[in-house]
Amino acid sequence: YFVYDSKKSGGLTVSHLRFGPKPIDAPFLIQRASFIGVHLFEFLESYDVLKQAEEGGVFLLNSPFSKDEVWDQLPAEVQETILAKHLKFYVIDALTVAHNAGMGNRINTVMQTAFFAISGVLPREEAIEHIKASIKKAYSKKGQEVVAKNWAAVDNSLAALHQVETEGRKVTGHHRKPLVSDEAPEFVKKVTAVMMAQRGDELPVSAIPDDGTWPSGTTRWEKRNIASEVPSWDPAKCIQCGKCVMVCPHGVIRSRLITNEDAAKAPESFKLAEAKGFVGYKDYKFSMQISVEDCTGCTLCVGVCPAKEKALTMVPQRPLREEGRKNWKFFLDLPDLGGDLKRTMVKNVQLLPPMFEFSGACAGCGETPYVKMVSQLFGDRAMIANATGCSSIYGGNLPTTPWCTNKDGRGPAWSNSLFEDNAEFGLGMRIAVDQKAEYARQLLTEAKDKIDPEVYEGLMAVEPATPENIAKKRALLDKLAEKVKGCDCTCARELESVMDALIPRSVWIIGGDGWAYDIGYGGLDHVLAQGKNVNVLVLDTEVYSNTGGQASKATPLGAVARFAAAGKSLPKKDLGMIAMSYGNIYVAQISVGANDAQALKAIEEAESYDGPSLIIAYSHCINHGINMADGLKHQKNAVECGQWPLYRFDPRLKAQGKPCLQVDYKGPKTPVADYLASENRFRQLQKINPEAAAKFAEESEAIAKERYERYLYLAAAPEDKQ
Amino acid sequence: YFVYDSKKSGGLTVSHLRFGPKPIDAPFLIQRASFIGVHLFEFLESYDVLKQAEEGGVFLLNSPFSKDEVWDQLPAEVQETILAKHLKFYVIDALTVAHNAGMGNRINTVMQTAFFAISGVLPREEAIEHIKASIKKAYSKKGQEVVAKNWAAVDNSLAALHQVETEGRKVTGHHRKPLVSDEAPEFVKKVTAVMMAQRGDELPVSAIPDDGTWPSGTTRWEKRNIASEVPSWDPAKCIQCGKCVMVCPHGVIRSRLITNEDAAKAPESFKLAEAKGFVGYKDYKFSMQISVEDCTGCTLCVGVCPAKEKALTMVPQRPLREEGRKNWKFFLDLPDLGGDLKRTMVKNVQLLPPMFEFSGACAGCGETPYVKMVSQLFGDRAMIANATGCSSIYGGNLPTTPWCTNKDGRGPAWSNSLFEDNAEFGLGMRIAVDQKAEYARQLLTEAKDKIDPEVYEGLMAVEPATPENIAKKRALLDKLAEKVKGCDCTCARELESVMDALIPRSVWIIGGDGWAYDIGYGGLDHVLAQGKNVNVLVLDTEVYSNTGGQASKATPLGAVARFAAAGKSLPKKDLGMIAMSYGNIYVAQISVGANDAQALKAIEEAESYDGPSLIIAYSHCINHGINMADGLKHQKNAVECGQWPLYRFDPRLKAQGKPCLQVDYKGPKTPVADYLASENRFRQLQKINPEAAAKFAEESEAIAKERYERYLYLAAAPEDKQ
Ligand SMILES: Cc1ncc(C[n+]2csc(CCOP(=O)(O)OP(=O)(O)O)c2C)c(N)n1
Ligand SMILES: Cc1ncc(C[n+]2csc(CCOP(=O)(O)OP(=O)(O)O)c2C)c(N)n1
Ligand code: SF4
Ligand code: SF4
Ligand code: SF4
Ligand code: SF4
Repeated sequence: YFVYDSKKSGGLTVSHLRFGPKPIDAPFLIQRASFIGVHLFEFLESYDVLKQAEEGGVFLLNSPFSKDEVWDQLPAEVQETILAKHLKFYVIDALTVAHNAGMGNRINTVMQTAFFAISGVLPREEAIEHIKASIKKAYSKKGQEVVAKNWAAVDNSLAALHQVETEGRKVTGHHRKPLVSDEAPEFVKKVTAVMMAQRGDELPVSAIPDDGTWPSGTTRWEKRNIASEVPSWDPAKCIQCGKCVMVCPHGVIRSRLITNEDAAKAPESFKLAEAKGFVGYKDYKFSMQISVEDCTGCTLCVGVCPAKEKALTMVPQRPLREEGRKNWKFFLDLPDLGGDLKRTMVKNVQLLPPMFEFSGACAGCGETPYVKMVSQLFGDRAMIANATGCSSIYGGNLPTTPWCTNKDGRGPAWSNSLFEDNAEFGLGMRIAVDQKAEYARQLLTEAKDKIDPEVYEGLMAVEPATPENIAKKRALLDKLAEKVKGCDCTCARELESVMDALIPRSVWIIGGDGWAYDIGYGGLDHVLAQGKNVNVLVLDTEVYSNTGGQASKATPLGAVARFAAAGKSLPKKDLGMIAMSYGNIYVAQISVGANDAQALKAIEEAESYDGPSLIIAYSHCINHGINMADGLKHQKNAVECGQWPLYRFDPRLKAQGKPCLQVDYKGPKTPVADYLASENRFRQLQKINPEAAAKFAEESEAIAKERYERYLYLAAAPEDKQ
Repeated sequence: YFVYDSKKSGGLTVSHLRFGPKPIDAPFLIQRASFIGVHLFEFLESYDVLKQAEEGGVFLLNSPFSKDEVWDQLPAEVQETILAKHLKFYVIDALTVAHNAGMGNRINTVMQTAFFAISGVLPREEAIEHIKASIKKAYSKKGQEVVAKNWAAVDNSLAALHQVETEGRKVTGHHRKPLVSDEAPEFVKKVTAVMMAQRGDELPVSAIPDDGTWPSGTTRWEKRNIASEVPSWDPAKCIQCGKCVMVCPHGVIRSRLITNEDAAKAPESFKLAEAKGFVGYKDYKFSMQISVEDCTGCTLCVGVCPAKEKALTMVPQRPLREEGRKNWKFFLDLPDLGGDLKRTMVKNVQLLPPMFEFSGACAGCGETPYVKMVSQLFGDRAMIANATGCSSIYGGNLPTTPWCTNKDGRGPAWSNSLFEDNAEFGLGMRIAVDQKAEYARQLLTEAKDKIDPEVYEGLMAVEPATPENIAKKRALLDKLAEKVKGCDCTCARELESVMDALIPRSVWIIGGDGWAYDIGYGGLDHVLAQGKNVNVLVLDTEVYSNTGGQASKATPLGAVARFAAAGKSLPKKDLGMIAMSYGNIYVAQISVGANDAQALKAIEEAESYDGPSLIIAYSHCINHGINMADGLKHQKNAVECGQWPLYRFDPRLKAQGKPCLQVDYKGPKTPVADYLASENRFRQLQKINPEAAAKFAEESEAIAKERYERYLYLAAAPEDKQ
């Protein structure tokens, strides 16, 4: 049995293994372990790894410290348990052994050998014999040399395995630090941290909120420190475009405008530049900060940096922890400036605080930048219905949630219902909040005489939900709240319970392509056809990512995926075109890697459209078989070869006599085949079945060309059409 | 409580009513009734109407016969029960009373008055007072005159109500005829007929097939005699086009080529003409026959007859029953000729025996002609997955089924799973039968040495499923069967169990628009995208018909429907366009009323395409608020104004360098507004909200125009495109 958390990067897995001469039918976890192996030294600081160890059991630790040095490096709690339970304690520097054997970071064989050598599952000699025999069997085809090398690795493992003398040892170690900082809220300390330590089972039911809500903004207390290298910013080279902030999948790198006054108070190592190109912020400072303890080291930010000489470079993380923590705290406490800037430019929008941060998505994930951007633009008044998929896992799986609030305490309401009914779920949110607003307006009208006319008119007005209008409405709502508080009729209490709905809510329905193209499609189609003001964001990874890459109807022709082992034989479903056929749905295809300004524009337009909107966002993914650091380049290539068209279809344009469709890419400019060859999901097929691969490439080329022509036709002004 | 059958025309409803001073909570049917009212004299011949009557109870009969004549008209069984149970027997000629009171055929008020007068629920005088008071309340706004007229109807009802003297009466009546003819199969007599008589509850479980199959072709034993008038054929005026046969929703009117030899044996009243325009059948006779006992009197056949002077006229049914029955029997027993004629012409195809007949659909239903046509063309090798909806009710609700076999005993396998999963259900049929065929081929190949090479090659060959190829394969299969019978290895038995699958199966997935556009759409889309050879037939009535007309996404802009009381505010979903966006799906929109040849062509092309096909068929319906006799005219108008486009999209054309889309209508030629004004579903809105109606009409016009242009663009040859 395996116990694991839901982090897609830097996660924990505990394997519960039982051995015996006969099959063991014991479908529960081990409570008294005769052997405990810890493969990562750092876990000693976070988890009570020896909790289940039985008296006199064996404890194997992968340790960078030798058998003589290791004792004093152990946390006091670990030392105490070793002594109290009389454990036999072994160490091995598995990483060094693996490195020397040419196996890179893969320490599994090393740890396995060590396990068999000391666990007593089999007599030592017999176990080693079996391991060597199985190596021979597996590698003899590759030649005697390879076998010999692996045998050597086994021997070296045994040689590097040392028992640590514990007789007469004293508890000398440091005490384990609490998992979360002392500044964390009570709930995080009392509940979240316990779950983080994998001890959630110990929590009483009474510790859990009884209404289904769950405190948000808790990933910020994790400080997972999983990156060995993090970006370092060079203020002199930076052009302040904000692209790195935009693409960071984890909300780790952020930019800020800072007054000179505040800047003067910054810690010494806090880097600053003169603000450039922010209208109205001429005499301000600009800073880019990296939360080094939250960075995954994915390098997307470095890759996207368009400065002539990169303003970001990767540097070792460990030495930066202390000062990074201080700088980050100082940075966070500064006021959020620039919210008044035009939201048409990426650099301006990236000054807005994200309300989605430090999620457990894979390092370099292509989905999260879109999610984060939505949170920056509308998070303060958003309601989010999230389909099951990667985004529900990194978005809301316990114990921590990346969704958070801004300084005013405003942030998205978020929930995940099912994989299949997410569109309906979101429609329900829309209808419910509209109903509330309607009721609030009714109550307001009934009490009209008692309310300041300015407040009444302002709150009743139906206006575009621009930041200015929202701010105005909020100020009026505060006035109303004051007034209502003083009134003690039931009507006032009713109004208090619903008046918040007078601030226009932004409903977002978010999910992957498996949801949108397949399993949730029936509902999505129906919801889009209802004409209600909901915004759908499809994070299109072109496979079911969360479950390991099954083909969906979004999977492109020729891609190898689960259930499409010979390459998908049918083209990708044109979900956008289908939605456009209704005429009254805002539809856009976007790709931050190819055109971030267009993506931003589409998201803004979609939200401002008082009707259903559908945004299909290209999301590179580990399932594509690419180097994730190059994710954005792949996005760009997909657009340039015509495989991923960019467009916006805005029904509002019809009233202006303009065609609704605007094509935002230049058509196929590079060979599709080159693009296909650059991603393993396609390239795989060239090995298995080169003819099929060639045929698919040719077909894809033709489809890209044809589609571009069709789009151009639809986008031509009516009089230009035949 | 109500008990009713599932016939949409000429059905039976039994109301079980309890009266008492306090509300009665008895959720079960009445077994001992103190009152039984029979509103239709004919029911005495079919049902044991007095079964639940209690000793000394009251029996009220709506009777065209007077109190003195009626006794001898009663079936002996009814007389016996009246005497045995000492029933108080009353008659009233309700139809005459209603007619005289200017209430047409609506006998409800009359029967209600009679009921209150004699049932003893309330004292007679008090009951009449209450009835009159309620009439006054309801009609006093319309003036004293109307009240007086209704009061008079009450008084007349009382006057026309007579008790029949039963003292000393003898059993003099005829014995009730069995419900089904003596020629019916055992099962029909022993099971179906019992259910038809509403006595299904009495059947033991052992009478029901234990594997879920149900004998087909049983509607033919019902002989419901529900039409007061039926068509009469004039051979001299008939141009033998077959259109009447095609449109008959009930499979009642049929055409035949007959040898002179057979013609000579025809009954005297059997009408004949010289065959005209059937290639190769120059010296043959032609006849059109009407099963008068199965006709619903809908008049669609008369309406569609294109002869200069109509070759069909409606005449009273009753006098024709006897000779009609004889002629029909003679007609059915004749051999089916003309199966070799080209299936591109409606008149030829209409010689093929339907394998769907006498369903319980509404008189004049617009769905059934398509279903019937599919049965004529492919019924002998079809597997049908039917979504829940009208087509599952008239298609397979017990006790009888309209699906039947041809003379060779071949007919469709039919089943209904759920409303929502029908596409998946049909895909399962496809996969299952393909798997069987594959296995059969494998077994055949294993036994290759033992089989005649001609048989082997012929059965292994993958050829287009033309009638000739199918016939050839069937002959070879017979040879194989002979051979296999003689062999006693297990392999032979295995082969026997699957070899039938070597005849290519035609899989049809049938359902309404509620299924295809809404509730089953997610599955339909997924199934179409799988690329498998299934044929989808959407019977598009533009509402959920079976449940009384709820709006679906197929409902057109501005139509009033349930859940769209103010007219549907969004345009019809373009399901065909959506399916075309995949590129590899055969798609057609058809309308038999507008272009039957195109409809036939589309159905043939769809079936012959070795991939998914989708046919969307315009089906007029009682829910449209039209005179059903004009159903086909409405179909035509819908096409001519551009509201219902006709087209075929054939992916095979791409390989020929041709555009796949062929537009089969001439664009909007008449004002959409005129068409809308002709159907009550749209016209209603003109009364409630004329401005909205006008706006919808204008928008519909624009949509029709735009759509036609878009279709033309897509249908233009590639080089013609900009
Ligand atoms: C009805 C249902 N089927 C299957 C699953 C298992 N499941 C959970 S997430 C997931 C994949 C989601 O894929 P996608 O919608 O593409 O989102 P992504 O993970 O790619 O972001 C699946 C199959 C489920 N939760 N519910
Ligand atoms: C899931 C489900 N919802 C509702 C029903 C009830 N129902 C039975 S038939 C029907 C209407 C079918 O309409 P449509 O598909 O348009 O076919 P039509 O009756 O018009 O031929 C409905 C709503 C059902 N059987 N199953
Ligand atoms: S390396 Fe990745 S996680 Fe770290 S700041 Fe850059 S983009 Fe963000
Ligand atoms: S979408 Fe891909 S990269 Fe992102 S979290 Fe899911 S599996 Fe990882
Ligand atoms: S009247 Fe209707 S049911 Fe009768 S034969 Fe004509 S079309 Fe068929
Ligand atoms: S489709 Fe309409 S006309 Fe036909 S059976 Fe159903 S309700 Fe009646």
